[in-house]
Amino acid sequence: MATAHTPAYRRLDVEERRRRLLETGAELFARHAYHELSMADIARAAGISKPLLYHYFPSKQAFLRAAFEQVAGELRELTATDPSKPPPEQLADALDGFLSWIEQHELTYRKLLHSTGSVPEVTELIDSVREPTARRILDGLTPQGTAPGPRARAAVRGWLWFMDGAIIDWLEHRDYTRDELRDMLLGTLIGALGAAGAILS
Amino acid sequence: MATAHTPAYRRLDVEERRRRLLETGAELFARHAYHELSMADIARAAGISKPLLYHYFPSKQAFLRAAFEQVAGELRELTATDPSKPPPEQLADALDGFLSWIEQHELTYRKLLHSTGSVPEVTELIDSVREPTARRILDGLTPQGTAPGPRARAAVRGWLWFMDGAIIDWLEHRDYTRDELRDMLLGTLIGALGAAGAILS
Repeated sequence: MATAHTPAYRRLDVEERRRRLLETGAELFARHAYHELSMADIARAAGISKPLLYHYFPSKQAFLRAAFEQVAGELRELTATDPSKPPPEQLADALDGFLSWIEQHELTYRKLLHSTGSVPEVTELIDSVREPTARRILDGLTPQGTAPGPRARAAVRGWLWFMDGAIIDWLEHRDYTRDELRDMLLGTLIGALGAAGAILS
Repeated sequence: MATAHTPAYRRLDVEERRRRLLETGAELFARHAYHELSMADIARAAGISKPLLYHYFPSKQAFLRAAFEQVAGELRELTATDPSKPPPEQLADALDGFLSWIEQHELTYRKLLHSTGSVPEVTELIDSVREPTARRILDGLTPQGTAPGPRARAAVRGWLWFMDGAIIDWLEHRDYTRDELRDMLLGTLIGALGAAGAILS
């Protein structure tokens, strides 16, 4: 539809195609080991030619990185909260967003967790979601301008791991509701911060 | 020292050599990627011939597995507790044993965590330590004969992940004591079980 005379449309088209390519990529990476996939496989799955794929992404690594950036962006959007709400409520909202993403992308989530350590891009992705989340939690829970204590920092970091362990359990068993999981996660964070000597503001 | 006429001594000798080989192996695996190491490298590091190494272990995989079994055995020994003590005290003792092992084997511990997922033997090792630990915690904290609820199971599992996250933080910063870490871990478990609606017996 877009022609050389309608650059604005053309650009949207390109961005939309890029987004869809990355979605296809995220699904492929969830189903196969990274080293097993070639750019040819990706092009085939996306129904485009290999040269066109290379037009968008110069290498498989660039493609993987872009696919992960897209996932991280989605997660950031879903876990964004209303800063006028009290911090515990914001946290509950962010958790709801995160858990709803996981419900829809169970395979991708499991694969990401499974690949941490072995694929540097995955470690980067997980850190790029975990670190600002930890910072937001700590900022919300400590009075403005004060640095959280070392144990509060460790408690929040440990809790982000707790979350993955508990979510894996939930995905495997599904014998409690998503809301019960969310409440357990929130209660555990409060317990951990209490055990770390930090107090909820 | 041992001769063909003293089979008992000879056997000890063999076991001791096997144990030392595995210790060397665990250190090598902590420093290098598994696929980078050859049986020749391992033999060289242990100061023995490659045929002798093959005499003890039929393959690199068998060697890796045996090295991990040795680590798991050590951990089980260090985290064994006195069943006559109250469960929370046993848990504190087990944590002390676990944290003291980590202090002495920081590199191995970090590498193991980093390799989960990519090396199936590591996943097996971690599960072989985590699963009985989770079972012991749940058995100690719930009245005999009752099955723990799904959320208590998830809380304990999540907490084992929390532990790794908090330990990594501690190893990186070392700005609080091992005892403070242990107390934070214990307090968090109690908080998590509380949030899961489980009650400490």
